[in-house]
Amino acid sequence: MNSLTAVVGAESISAEVARIQALKHPTSPAWLELVLAHPNTLLLDHSHCERKAAGVALNLMFRYPSCTELVYALTQIAREELEHFEQVNRLLAERGIPLGPLSAPPYGAKLSGQTRRQEPDRLLDSLLVAGLIEARSHERLGLLAQYCPDPVLSDFYSSLMASEARHYGTYWVLADTYFEREAVKARLEELSEVESQLLTTLHPEPRIHS
Amino acid sequence: MNSLTAVVGAESISAEVARIQALKHPTSPAWLELVLAHPNTLLLDHSHCERKAAGVALNLMFRYPSCTELVYALTQIAREELEHFEQVNRLLAERGIPLGPLSAPPYGAKLSGQTRRQEPDRLLDSLLVAGLIEARSHERLGLLAQYCPDPVLSDFYSSLMASEARHYGTYWVLADTYFEREAVKARLEELSEVESQLLTTLHPEPRIHS
Repeated sequence: MNSLTAVVGAESISAEVARIQALKHPTSPAWLELVLAHPNTLLLDHSHCERKAAGVALNLMFRYPSCTELVYALTQIAREELEHFEQVNRLLAERGIPLGPLSAPPYGAKLSGQTRRQEPDRLLDSLLVAGLIEARSHERLGLLAQYCPDPVLSDFYSSLMASEARHYGTYWVLADTYFEREAVKARLEELSEVESQLLTTLHPEPRIHS
Repeated sequence: MNSLTAVVGAESISAEVARIQALKHPTSPAWLELVLAHPNTLLLDHSHCERKAAGVALNLMFRYPSCTELVYALTQIAREELEHFEQVNRLLAERGIPLGPLSAPPYGAKLSGQTRRQEPDRLLDSLLVAGLIEARSHERLGLLAQYCPDPVLSDFYSSLMASEARHYGTYWVLADTYFEREAVKARLEELSEVESQLLTTLHPEPRIHS
């Protein structure tokens, strides 16, 4: 890890994170070292992430069919995630990596586990959790774009970064649409602390959200 | 109903159905009369149908992540359904019809209830049930395209018909990819009989699948 830390120092990662204010703590160099050593597994996990992200958007559309702004915005997100899913799958095919199941890291389930069950808290938490996952994806794809030695993958990760940031913004705007801004900020503060805490212990398998 | 039957005789509906061999029995003129009298409710139900169809495709992709042809084909279907969902929602907005929940007719749940629980039967049945729903949608959107007096809606229904038929074809091809053709044909025969039987009693609320 020492050699990697020399390349990807804590300082440069912090600079990345500064642009994503929702994230309390930057990704560790240890994560980058882990995933750069397993690009194929990471690409397969990325495919699952895009499909899951489309599923999250679609589930929220199902749950809140009367929330017009939410339905409109999440339709866009679901369509984009499916487009990215197709793009990742094309890269997998080009590299001869077969589609298949992959165990999920605990991050997604544990963060979603923070969602309160009673409405309207449930809606607020669902939007913020989804937004935080997008924000973290943005940060990590950015790191991959910067440090992945494979130029095709690096370009690919770079091409997706803007979408992830936009999706974070969409979830934030939706939260701000349906809730008081102070309540949104206070809850985001709590959830983003949990989000960063979840990543302090590196999951040993190479995943986007290890 | 007599006046409608004069316009939409059993003969002309049968001619429509002849092109969709999966359907055992044509839609009754009573359905057409019911839904033409409630175009706004039908449009809202149509919105739900498109979102549900995207959900069906996505759920199958989740359940069978190693089935490459299935994942590729259903990604396309899910993307198209979301595009149609957006188109219906735009029409709803233009007409001042708010988005909102709508009780589902028993058709979808009862037809899906025919799905056997053990694999690989479950996959075969899931594909054929999804395909039959698409085939019926194709038939009914075709009737709406032909008989809806509102030219905007008529054109819209007409524009979607080809996709629904293509989606039926995709589900059929997928079944044929993963199973012996004779087994597919035999099970389709059984399920299509159930599908038509479910529609012999007209659901009193105006829905695409009343």
